[in-house]
Amino acid sequence: MELLKQRILKDGTVKPGNVLKVDSFLNHQMDIPLINEIGKEFKRRFADKEITKILTIEASGIGIACITAQYFNVPVVFAKKSHSINLDGEMYMTTVESFTHKNVSNVILAKRYLTSDDHVLLIDDFLANGCALLGLIDIVKEAGATVEGAGIVIEKGFQSGGQTIRDMGIQLESLAIIDSMDDTTVTFR
Amino acid sequence: MELLKQRILKDGTVKPGNVLKVDSFLNHQMDIPLINEIGKEFKRRFADKEITKILTIEASGIGIACITAQYFNVPVVFAKKSHSINLDGEMYMTTVESFTHKNVSNVILAKRYLTSDDHVLLIDDFLANGCALLGLIDIVKEAGATVEGAGIVIEKGFQSGGQTIRDMGIQLESLAIIDSMDDTTVTFR
Repeated sequence: MELLKQRILKDGTVKPGNVLKVDSFLNHQMDIPLINEIGKEFKRRFADKEITKILTIEASGIGIACITAQYFNVPVVFAKKSHSINLDGEMYMTTVESFTHKNVSNVILAKRYLTSDDHVLLIDDFLANGCALLGLIDIVKEAGATVEGAGIVIEKGFQSGGQTIRDMGIQLESLAIIDSMDDTTVTFR
Repeated sequence: MELLKQRILKDGTVKPGNVLKVDSFLNHQMDIPLINEIGKEFKRRFADKEITKILTIEASGIGIACITAQYFNVPVVFAKKSHSINLDGEMYMTTVESFTHKNVSNVILAKRYLTSDDHVLLIDDFLANGCALLGLIDIVKEAGATVEGAGIVIEKGFQSGGQTIRDMGIQLESLAIIDSMDDTTVTFR
């Protein structure tokens, strides 16, 4: 997606530890017209799929998922990273290791919001080692629902997550895939 | 907002400890057409304000803020509840006690995304004791920016947050204010 790549080149910065900061437009401050274009592009790429629900994980995926859901006319469900007293009933649960935060979270989702009838599009801002996405896929499988695809805004192509997901036979659409980056250059696939 | 009140009566459930569960449509599963109506209503109520930025706090506020921002044509910034290696530069910081989660979080926001030129609309899903909103107001004041108002989806009118915020002279617009609730009845103001 050319608009996104140009924006990464213009406003993204690379930090030590292979961290790409895009927090001026994607995951701290959010450029809503850009995210609308991202939502439209996900719809274009999954136009032939009958999606019933968009599934994401808190926190940065939620805004992108909500804007995208407008183009699919389906509800969003977001998996939660910590146990809240405000969740009850039966839960799907998995664990996710965060590349960015260097920690492991329990991730939960109320069973009543994902059933075997659902055809799910997974949405997230980043794909690196794939742990978040694999956690969501675990939950979808546990529900007996169908993963129709995964839409990622930025994939770090030099980490293993993308290959792992594609090897599972899942349609993974990353709107920008970064093959390499250093202090001065970001190279897209 | 009548549509919202009817939805709360239809799908909300009251749990021990004055917890109102609306996670089938607002803060776990999200009904996007309803949230679009909520966004339009916020725009109507703050139509006379020159907003430059919408500020919310992760996680449940983000989707509502992003949908609402489409009607104001402004960016969203969301305050983050934990320190991430992916945030750098100078930060505004405050602490917020969660009524729902019964814990205290550090809340941070990169200084470059909120400046003294900004006219800010605060958005969140719930207002109970007001801690989250007061934390956001702290951050706006620290930035030297202007709070133009606060838009809340559901206010628990029997807790003190709403009164505190209104006593500060802030235009607080809560789309549903609950005066009392028990196992069988939710009463709106």
